[in-house]
Amino acid sequence: MLHVIIILIQVENNYLFDPNLLEEICMNETTTYLKGGVSLSNPGEGLKLRPLSADDFAKGCYLDLLKQPNLVGQIFTETILSRFNLMKSTPSTYFIFVIEDLEKQKIVASATVVVERKFIHECSSRGRIEDVVVDEGYRGLQLGKLLVVVGEFLSKKLGCYKTSLECSDGKVEFYEKVGFKIDGKHMVKRFSS
Amino acid sequence: MLHVIIILIQVENNYLFDPNLLEEICMNETTTYLKGGVSLSNPGEGLKLRPLSADDFAKGCYLDLLKQPNLVGQIFTETILSRFNLMKSTPSTYFIFVIEDLEKQKIVASATVVVERKFIHECSSRGRIEDVVVDEGYRGLQLGKLLVVVGEFLSKKLGCYKTSLECSDGKVEFYEKVGFKIDGKHMVKRFSS
Repeated sequence: MLHVIIILIQVENNYLFDPNLLEEICMNETTTYLKGGVSLSNPGEGLKLRPLSADDFAKGCYLDLLKQPNLVGQIFTETILSRFNLMKSTPSTYFIFVIEDLEKQKIVASATVVVERKFIHECSSRGRIEDVVVDEGYRGLQLGKLLVVVGEFLSKKLGCYKTSLECSDGKVEFYEKVGFKIDGKHMVKRFSS
Repeated sequence: MLHVIIILIQVENNYLFDPNLLEEICMNETTTYLKGGVSLSNPGEGLKLRPLSADDFAKGCYLDLLKQPNLVGQIFTETILSRFNLMKSTPSTYFIFVIEDLEKQKIVASATVVVERKFIHECSSRGRIEDVVVDEGYRGLQLGKLLVVVGEFLSKKLGCYKTSLECSDGKVEFYEKVGFKIDGKHMVKRFSS
């Protein structure tokens, strides 16, 4: 007897998280922190805000932005995609969003919201804004502020009771301008450089 | 025809993570930060260091320790266990460990290591030591130091390139005594009290 097996393959997009999340924020949230026409839905001319995509690694530019040129190259592709998939499969935890220059197909800014589940605050969660980075050629366009504002709104939308970030003393003023307050020290022990 | 179906149920322990992890640390790591005979394998007379267990919620004492009495009670049991199971099912992320007074069957101290995956540092991870708390009646026994040292060794064993914590200015000296260094400010935006 001949068995015919039909396998349906679901074509998934390659985004780290559902882009609708960002779109809903863009539609519903406003902020007074951004000036000069920059908004959540309009990061700037020719620029687009979206989740990180697995396709961004092939271009290399995302890793260049993170100043991790040693991660670019054939040898590490598997490692990077494996890390991307691990983040994607971890439920509601990793939200890396990027700003792309559409014409140049280049990632020019990026930030991450990481969500941590707690027992405190009636089993609430907290957000953390991590790895805020803007390409040198795209500074002065309020993209840094935009990333932090999006990180704040995303944390709120994800049900966090607070969001936080760590920064050097020199960056305090910048973050105060977008409504963050100093809440003590960040202390570290390093195991490798 | 009679079909006999045998279902094998695996009896799992109720620990949040594999207790062997802590035992391996206790066996292999030494520290100069702890005095008076306190060590990773011997937290003190009648005390035991182990992972948080789902059974600890029935006693209520773990939530008492977190100063979350509003979470104790029938109404929240389902929420708490659901949160515990979510943490447990999130791969290699949540490591809450406690110190139990065995005679009183009471959780007297607790801390958490949360692991965050990164692309930077060649797809490394960082640890965070969170929610370090010692019952008022058990202070002065170096349990706080012990929790931080265990958090450090656990982060290291889990492959993190660094571990960090946030603290108020008044606690800086305490954490410096166990080898942590100030690395900037912790800044926060709160959405609820």
